[in-house]
Amino acid sequence: MTGVTGQPTPQVGAAGNGLLCCDGPMAPADPTPSVPRDATLADLGEFGVIEALTAIFEQGDHVDVGPGDDAAVLWCDDDQVLVSSDLMVQDRHFRRDWSEAADVGHRAAAQNLSDINAMGGRAHSLTVGLAVPADLPVAWVLDFARGFAEECALVGASVVGGDLTRADAIVVAVTVIGRCRLDPVLRSGAEPGEVVAIAGRQGWAAGGLAVLSRGFRSPRALVEAHRRPQPPYDAGPAAADAGATAMLDVSDGLLGDLAHLARASGVSIDLERAALDVPEALQAVAAATGSDPTELVLTGGDDHSLVATFGSADEVPAAFRVIGRVLAADGDPRVTVDGVAHEGAGGWTHF
Amino acid sequence: MTGVTGQPTPQVGAAGNGLLCCDGPMAPADPTPSVPRDATLADLGEFGVIEALTAIFEQGDHVDVGPGDDAAVLWCDDDQVLVSSDLMVQDRHFRRDWSEAADVGHRAAAQNLSDINAMGGRAHSLTVGLAVPADLPVAWVLDFARGFAEECALVGASVVGGDLTRADAIVVAVTVIGRCRLDPVLRSGAEPGEVVAIAGRQGWAAGGLAVLSRGFRSPRALVEAHRRPQPPYDAGPAAADAGATAMLDVSDGLLGDLAHLARASGVSIDLERAALDVPEALQAVAAATGSDPTELVLTGGDDHSLVATFGSADEVPAAFRVIGRVLAADGDPRVTVDGVAHEGAGGWTHF
Repeated sequence: MTGVTGQPTPQVGAAGNGLLCCDGPMAPADPTPSVPRDATLADLGEFGVIEALTAIFEQGDHVDVGPGDDAAVLWCDDDQVLVSSDLMVQDRHFRRDWSEAADVGHRAAAQNLSDINAMGGRAHSLTVGLAVPADLPVAWVLDFARGFAEECALVGASVVGGDLTRADAIVVAVTVIGRCRLDPVLRSGAEPGEVVAIAGRQGWAAGGLAVLSRGFRSPRALVEAHRRPQPPYDAGPAAADAGATAMLDVSDGLLGDLAHLARASGVSIDLERAALDVPEALQAVAAATGSDPTELVLTGGDDHSLVATFGSADEVPAAFRVIGRVLAADGDPRVTVDGVAHEGAGGWTHF
Repeated sequence: MTGVTGQPTPQVGAAGNGLLCCDGPMAPADPTPSVPRDATLADLGEFGVIEALTAIFEQGDHVDVGPGDDAAVLWCDDDQVLVSSDLMVQDRHFRRDWSEAADVGHRAAAQNLSDINAMGGRAHSLTVGLAVPADLPVAWVLDFARGFAEECALVGASVVGGDLTRADAIVVAVTVIGRCRLDPVLRSGAEPGEVVAIAGRQGWAAGGLAVLSRGFRSPRALVEAHRRPQPPYDAGPAAADAGATAMLDVSDGLLGDLAHLARASGVSIDLERAALDVPEALQAVAAATGSDPTELVLTGGDDHSLVATFGSADEVPAAFRVIGRVLAADGDPRVTVDGVAHEGAGGWTHF
């Protein structure tokens, strides 16, 4: 499209007219396109960047047409298609001095792949839109793309298209498409009497953020957890297989997100504080900052752990551990810890 | 997800945890949610905005789960799925003093719907991500959403999810998903001896931009064409039905985009200047600004006209008119006008 400045604003990949030609599966990814490390996007020009990006994104067998035409064409013999979209904004969701470009790529992919995971599904295709300043080093964009592609490769998903345009600050826009083998697991199916279980880390990324916010870089495991979350990608489909009645991923905080599940299902949830896993590194951070490590587990976001409800403890698959139970909502659906209401269990507000 | 400020940054619809509950098709759209016109996003809070947005986006029968869970769930019995993504950035792709919020919504939807049109397909589902300043009036967001939904309704597509987050300037991220009845029409199938044809307006939006850039608001038809392009949504599937061999939509300019088609197909293209439709309003603008109206037709973007190649003039469907022919590429694929190379026929660069 043309900008309001009268300058055309072309696009990369399936998003538009950026790429010259690529019918059928792409050539194998070139891990190291020959781009000078200090070149900016203005130096290399849009087409050079697009070519280098396309070399990074390897296409799976299900991709009939990858980046380069007006739209990507995917072979999908599923009855149901899962779709989710997310934005990440520089200095709001990530800081360039706290995270390398590859970290931002990993995290942008992970939070989207996790949304499909939370339906009990598996992602197969993503698009990624990048709005970036003209003086951004091309190396940042390519390192971002490599991190993004590496994360997608964990579940075998392809980056099938995207967009590249200019803005004053970096904005990353991701859409993920996936499939379910069984019916998707929604937020609304929990019933009183069931158990609540969690898979994956919880509180680690928040601990890392707390550390970075105070100017430290350790404990390393927590800082890394903030930079590159490790969603339990196999746990989502496993939960669906095991008959999970409701599920979501924890992106805003365990209590806050469970409140969404409780409201969607019309139930209350009580967590057992003693059942929560509080790793040693979190205890160390809490001791150093005079805070309660369990708070980080209860209210921290960005780990993309999964919480799901199951009919009984016997049905809970190996990746999950029971942390609470589903109760009838007498009046308003609530989330409590050891039977007591907890600050932070309500809705968040971003604006 | 949690922001680097430690503030949670929740999301709307299928993108995340923003919405409380909506399994199955949504309730009918409420065209006028009761939100004060001067309220900002900071005033109303994220959940109020999300609720109002969701009321605007009506869901089609193919949407099993709309906004509100971790991902949308679509019923798709197609073998092939078409996907495309685009970004629009404030003051780069649109200006708030030149376009109303509803215009921006129409245009953001149109340019994405057009990408599916250009494959010979029809869009059925979109996600829309909005990064906006906290002091933006909620009315802007809702008017944007209404314009977006109105444009999607032209092809019967649903807005199935999205994301709402904060940024210093408005960024709109759209992903569109569609289907083809027949095989998708790629850019790469043109053969020497075929004819080149166009459907839809060409040069109008560029004329409107030229007018606005000079501080005028008329000719009204051109200004409106910049604000709300009118892609020929029926022409794409009609071209596919008629056996179009290659196709794309003109977003960056007729010559520039035809150069992409020429390179993808390994052919050259010659346009006939006399065959180009130069509307009276464009002639008036050109006369007033001392420019060549045909230049606006040849190099203007954002009308989202379709150009396609067909085996012969007899095969060209009614929505299209022949404007040139496909030639063998002796060496480098080129686009010429009346046999002469033309400035602007090469690739654009955005950075």
